Amino acid sequence: MQLYENRPKRHLSEQGIAEFVSEFGERFTQNMALREQHGTDESPYPVCPPDAVVFASSTDDVVRAVQLCQRWQVPLIPFGIGSSMEGHILPIEGGVTLDLSRMNQIIAVNAEDATVTVQAGVLRQQLNEEIRHTGLFFPIDPGANASLGGMASTRASGTNAVRYGTMRENVVSLKVVTAEGKVIRTSSRARKSSAGYDLTRLYVGSEGTLGIIVEVTLRVYPVPEAISAAVCNFATLQDAVSSVIDIMQMGIPVARVEFMDDRAVRAVNRHSQLNLRETPLLLFEFHGSTAAVAEHAQQAQEITQSHGGMDFEWAEKAEERSRLWTARHKAYFAGLQMRPGARSVSTDVCVPISRLADCVMQTVTDLEGMPFPFKIVGHVGDGNFHVQMLLDEQSENEWALSEEVNHRLVRRAIQMDGTCTGEHGIGIHKMEFLKEEHGEDALDVMRRIKHALDPANILNPGKIVSWD
Amino acid sequence: MQLYENRPKRHLSEQGIAEFVSEFGERFTQNMALREQHGTDESPYPVCPPDAVVFASSTDDVVRAVQLCQRWQVPLIPFGIGSSMEGHILPIEGGVTLDLSRMNQIIAVNAEDATVTVQAGVLRQQLNEEIRHTGLFFPIDPGANASLGGMASTRASGTNAVRYGTMRENVVSLKVVTAEGKVIRTSSRARKSSAGYDLTRLYVGSEGTLGIIVEVTLRVYPVPEAISAAVCNFATLQDAVSSVIDIMQMGIPVARVEFMDDRAVRAVNRHSQLNLRETPLLLFEFHGSTAAVAEHAQQAQEITQSHGGMDFEWAEKAEERSRLWTARHKAYFAGLQMRPGARSVSTDVCVPISRLADCVMQTVTDLEGMPFPFKIVGHVGDGNFHVQMLLDEQSENEWALSEEVNHRLVRRAIQMDGTCTGEHGIGIHKMEFLKEEHGEDALDVMRRIKHALDPANILNPGKIVSWD
Repeated sequence: MQLYENRPKRHLSEQGIAEFVSEFGERFTQNMALREQHGTDESPYPVCPPDAVVFASSTDDVVRAVQLCQRWQVPLIPFGIGSSMEGHILPIEGGVTLDLSRMNQIIAVNAEDATVTVQAGVLRQQLNEEIRHTGLFFPIDPGANASLGGMASTRASGTNAVRYGTMRENVVSLKVVTAEGKVIRTSSRARKSSAGYDLTRLYVGSEGTLGIIVEVTLRVYPVPEAISAAVCNFATLQDAVSSVIDIMQMGIPVARVEFMDDRAVRAVNRHSQLNLRETPLLLFEFHGSTAAVAEHAQQAQEITQSHGGMDFEWAEKAEERSRLWTARHKAYFAGLQMRPGARSVSTDVCVPISRLADCVMQTVTDLEGMPFPFKIVGHVGDGNFHVQMLLDEQSENEWALSEEVNHRLVRRAIQMDGTCTGEHGIGIHKMEFLKEEHGEDALDVMRRIKHALDPANILNPGKIVSWD
Repeated sequence: MQLYENRPKRHLSEQGIAEFVSEFGERFTQNMALREQHGTDESPYPVCPPDAVVFASSTDDVVRAVQLCQRWQVPLIPFGIGSSMEGHILPIEGGVTLDLSRMNQIIAVNAEDATVTVQAGVLRQQLNEEIRHTGLFFPIDPGANASLGGMASTRASGTNAVRYGTMRENVVSLKVVTAEGKVIRTSSRARKSSAGYDLTRLYVGSEGTLGIIVEVTLRVYPVPEAISAAVCNFATLQDAVSSVIDIMQMGIPVARVEFMDDRAVRAVNRHSQLNLRETPLLLFEFHGSTAAVAEHAQQAQEITQSHGGMDFEWAEKAEERSRLWTARHKAYFAGLQMRPGARSVSTDVCVPISRLADCVMQTVTDLEGMPFPFKIVGHVGDGNFHVQMLLDEQSENEWALSEEVNHRLVRRAIQMDGTCTGEHGIGIHKMEFLKEEHGEDALDVMRRIKHALDPANILNPGKIVSWD
């Protein structure tokens, strides 16, 4: 684990504290329980509490918090719900955490344009509940019930990305507070634009290092007339991946296609009381009109059969579908039961699909020599997969071995023209990997952008790209 | 017309010329015909020749040209085929034009991953011809047979964008030469990534002002099993737009849906010897499996009928489809015949589709008082439309009136939460409109990025955002 205890810190002074208190009253706190909560995410790093937490209720609050941090030259770390995976929200250089969870209003639903505008603290599931009556839904589903500001900040995706894209494709516009405390809007609500630099896509995935996202306008989609799911087992991973390649080359619009290895299937069977055949399998979902869904599923079935697929099982009823997909969504928790009390670490590479089977198989070979259990799930249509490693919390050796596995995996993915992170982001954990992936010259471009937009290095410092 | 004759110029010195000659030999030219050709695009601006033209054959050539321009502190303007619409490639501050048309190799076709990698000078039609045997195609079609580097630089789109997206969604990765002459790759070939700032999307649409795009990796798509087209007339524009809104809200995946006003239909009938009913009409195309296409077209027809749509005419055969779509593609030339010898000027706003009918109708009211003819076509699924105005080449008054119409149109679009350019870009013509759309604070963010990545203001200066 990278150590951040020794980093130079910029702590809030007594006078700075007094000004925050005067500005925010009880919405500014130095309570240790709250500080610790805001110094914890889903990464394996130890807790790293900020000096204080401020709860923003409005864009004006965010502006004032930025101005105070500029005035006192301390870091400001935006915080949604703390579900990031790579240490994104840890205040490793000290400073104030800006909690956006109270900015949780849905501002506008424009059904004719299929857009919604929400405050950054709105949660994914809340959004879908609040727009259900319109017949629209927001498809991006990273697993966690994350905040939409956080999802934009990490360029999140998940199981629906093969059909609907990621946050990159589904954020229409952002309202952002800059490091100077200016409020900008990155784009209009037009579906497309050639109007200047793409500030929307620049802030999406910038992990709070270039500005604070306070509002997000998103594309939403009509709830499909019909949905069907299917599960199909294969003798080998290669057969499963070849099926997906053929399905995509046929242009069959699959909405989701998830891979589980035999270990993941075993874990899910136990956790969710299922009796799936314990071989590599694919879990499909099709969205569309009744006739189109039936046709596409039939075509997909024929392709899987040509690759030795077994037991193509249909689940057209909502409850059967839900049972299957709930099991998939609980795969993480099912994995935890493989070694109760263990620390779970997830990898996150993404490669061109033509290299996916190779990449997974080489990784399995590497992992089979390790002293800890693991399982693999993947968003196979995108070439993205996760190894969940279950580590003995007390074992420095297991931690070190898992980091070496991860590093070899990332190198393997980069050599296959893939990326060190498909959807989790860089945070502090993958900064070295980012350098390996992009090279120093591209990193220099990123660093210049950071210097240009946040010259005092106030906004979530020490993440994505080093200052020097 | 904005004047650029009075701008401060940075011209290449005799010694600079000697170094270019020594480096590039005959691929460096000061021939006036070539200079004039490279000082002309599809904008209405007068010719603005560069000091010289250099023809690059390789990335190394581009690096050397950048280094020489840095050394002699003169502008470098990348040039694909000169089809830009807003003065993007005019060397308004002097300097050297970098012609990339000889970099026209297709570098890789990765059929399993549905990606292709091409040099920046490859033309759109060339790409589709060269990959036809793979069963894949590249859908983005801005009308002109533009270069793919140029299309990336202007974030181009066109008639297929409603289904396949724009260059924003379809550029996977770029190879870029920076202002320092470093060669970077903006991304891997993975379908998605959360690895740092989205440099790909930053360079897409940056119009050559942040770096020189030398290679483009693109998403390609399986040629659909079935394609059908249909044309449908309406009594009013509002009925046509309401039909499209309902079709999209139903989730019917229309591949293209184009609007023509009665003037455009008249012009197209004359030019292409068609006998379309001369009312507002929609031209549809559906892509997919045979059954899905039939189903979607049937559903679309029912929706149009509920809005008074007439004569829903099918064109399932390739030649009938081709006849209709060729007519659409020739609408620009058909428009020129409305006033032979006239200068054609096209507007390019894009608004949320809920405001499209209003925006077009208010614009028609404005235009009806003008002394010049016009017609309107639109990528209605995206909310993007173009007014083609046919101006007397000699009349300063008509030019001034048309600029006022355009300005009012842009303001109208911005007030409707739209953009000053859906697909043509900013160039020099829309810099003031960009400011109205984004505001000074967002423009300041863009300007900081320009300053950070091109501190000597070498790369296509004076475009998108002013230096100061």
